[in-house]
Amino acid sequence: MSFSFQIIGKDTSSFARLGEMTTAHGTVNTPAFMPVGTQGTVKSLLPEEIRKCGVQIILGNTYHLYLRPGHETIKKLGGLHRFMNWSYPILTDSGGFQVYSLAQLRKILPGGVMFRSHIDGSEHFLTPQKAIEVQEALDADIMMCLDDCTPYPATHDETQKSLELTLKWANLCLEAKNNSHQALFGIIQGGAYPDLRKLAARETVKLGFNGYALGGLSVGEPKILMQEITKSIAPELPADKPRYLMGVGTPEDIVFAVSCGADLFDCVIPTRSARHGLLFTNEEKIVIKNARWRESDIPLDETCDCYTCKNFSRAYLRHLYVAGEILAMILNTIHNVRYYERLMERIREALKEKRFSQFKNEFLTNKGGN
Amino acid sequence: MSFSFQIIGKDTSSFARLGEMTTAHGTVNTPAFMPVGTQGTVKSLLPEEIRKCGVQIILGNTYHLYLRPGHETIKKLGGLHRFMNWSYPILTDSGGFQVYSLAQLRKILPGGVMFRSHIDGSEHFLTPQKAIEVQEALDADIMMCLDDCTPYPATHDETQKSLELTLKWANLCLEAKNNSHQALFGIIQGGAYPDLRKLAARETVKLGFNGYALGGLSVGEPKILMQEITKSIAPELPADKPRYLMGVGTPEDIVFAVSCGADLFDCVIPTRSARHGLLFTNEEKIVIKNARWRESDIPLDETCDCYTCKNFSRAYLRHLYVAGEILAMILNTIHNVRYYERLMERIREALKEKRFSQFKNEFLTNKGGN
Repeated sequence: MSFSFQIIGKDTSSFARLGEMTTAHGTVNTPAFMPVGTQGTVKSLLPEEIRKCGVQIILGNTYHLYLRPGHETIKKLGGLHRFMNWSYPILTDSGGFQVYSLAQLRKILPGGVMFRSHIDGSEHFLTPQKAIEVQEALDADIMMCLDDCTPYPATHDETQKSLELTLKWANLCLEAKNNSHQALFGIIQGGAYPDLRKLAARETVKLGFNGYALGGLSVGEPKILMQEITKSIAPELPADKPRYLMGVGTPEDIVFAVSCGADLFDCVIPTRSARHGLLFTNEEKIVIKNARWRESDIPLDETCDCYTCKNFSRAYLRHLYVAGEILAMILNTIHNVRYYERLMERIREALKEKRFSQFKNEFLTNKGGN
Repeated sequence: MSFSFQIIGKDTSSFARLGEMTTAHGTVNTPAFMPVGTQGTVKSLLPEEIRKCGVQIILGNTYHLYLRPGHETIKKLGGLHRFMNWSYPILTDSGGFQVYSLAQLRKILPGGVMFRSHIDGSEHFLTPQKAIEVQEALDADIMMCLDDCTPYPATHDETQKSLELTLKWANLCLEAKNNSHQALFGIIQGGAYPDLRKLAARETVKLGFNGYALGGLSVGEPKILMQEITKSIAPELPADKPRYLMGVGTPEDIVFAVSCGADLFDCVIPTRSARHGLLFTNEEKIVIKNARWRESDIPLDETCDCYTCKNFSRAYLRHLYVAGEILAMILNTIHNVRYYERLMERIREALKEKRFSQFKNEFLTNKGGN
């Protein structure tokens, strides 16, 4: 199945839209959230549990899988879907962001990034061609171009140079791509400078990708700046291609970004928070280790349909967390992932029923519990 | 439902028997293995996964649950079954063994054991009455008498004194018991001395319990001694009551003990080994981190019907383990628990089909893969 994207509904008072993104491993209803499956697993969840949470697409990290177990190993074993027993869509990042945030002795060269593995210190050279080679070996449904993730803060000049490198690499990624069943998304950089964001968008779109991502967000910039950049999605990106806001975000960030026309999101917040006992509900954010839940016989969220909420009390979840039990991480992750997926379902329903603006206003005013 | 035990089949050339043990939360086909759910969870498994592994009954640890979250809390929340969402039988130990192996500053007094919590150093006094109070609050289907676990080695005199204390406490437990729907098992101590084991059995049986356990095994004694004591099960314990070999053991230990007439077993081996990447199969014991599995596309055990074996390769399991992923512990635990439960199913089938001795000989000769 080749990649396609259809808009099936639009909000009248914002840029929000309802879409269907078809990939080689099935269709994704957008706006959609992708839980992060860094090392070939969404931490602490069985694939069938991920699916039961309503997840349609997950994100895999090229950097981690390239280093361990190695993309060639995964290719020999039939690709990432088969390796991890997830038969639904997978988007992989290019590895660039992880090199930026995890690897040691990183050195950006015109042809790629030289870095040392955070696992064993071994030296590697990640080029645009290599990023595509790895993602093709993984058989990702959606691949991302290798980009240079501009740090925050950076001067206009630094940002422009970084952006030019990203554009050059985007072109090389496009040339390196072999498989027609895999989609390739371009990444818009440009840091905190609207003129550079605009330039990046124009030049990236000229190259022609299956979708476009905003990159370089959630790297320490002020929230207001992130929102300004998010607002540039609709005016600067083609309406008929999916738009992916990388690394975003909180439930509020997502609702806001949907209103700006974003279709895809990924973030470690639901899974990482879960492992730290921070749980999302429609009422409030719950710190499960809090002594007030010691004898609480109610579920985390009365309105939630997840396995955790249907079967366990806050008191039990608190006990597991305090006792350091693995099951705490499992049950908390199930709940938070389901919370995010339900949020996306609520967004899509609101769009379908032509009441997205009302939903957004209520959600952001009441903070939707967060 | 009140507690009962029926023998429904016997091996002709050993003491092995097939039974049905009925408890307030359902029936258990014996010989049966109980995975250990120390802190209100069989580590890393959802209750529905435990059940899918074929588990009929689990063991809970009174010592841990008494200290955290506290038996009164669990009682308020509807008992241990409801707390942990396991609606099938539960046996709880008395806490004695954990005090012996985990607690600090343990002091044995005629009326009970004074100890300090391994969690916060708080001082507690565990009496026979308290052990019953806690187990009644937990609402265990089968409770165990508080016993004094004789260390190995110990002199005949020390062992006899310890045994007399155990007998005295057994009587106090029986007197303290209130609930008719909960069964109470006596524990036979007597260390390494056949005469004392015999005495303990006779005196404990005189008191009249719903079942009998051999205690004080797996405390460092030589295997041959454990086997000698195991052989005393049938001659010294009533045929019409279930016999529980506490803390045993390896697959070979279990097969041997079944031939001696044991009906119930518990052990941390399958769950703890799983978390350390040691996996049981019919062919061999697999160390999953071994580099030879790096590209192995076969399941752990071709003959196993567990979720792990049906869905994942050794290469994937190795990857998860080496990467330190939580999913490694989950998938490994599912497999090892299923291995143990399948072993019990194979034992019961062999008994049903009148070929247990053949099964036992083949299993112990081929080492059944272990």
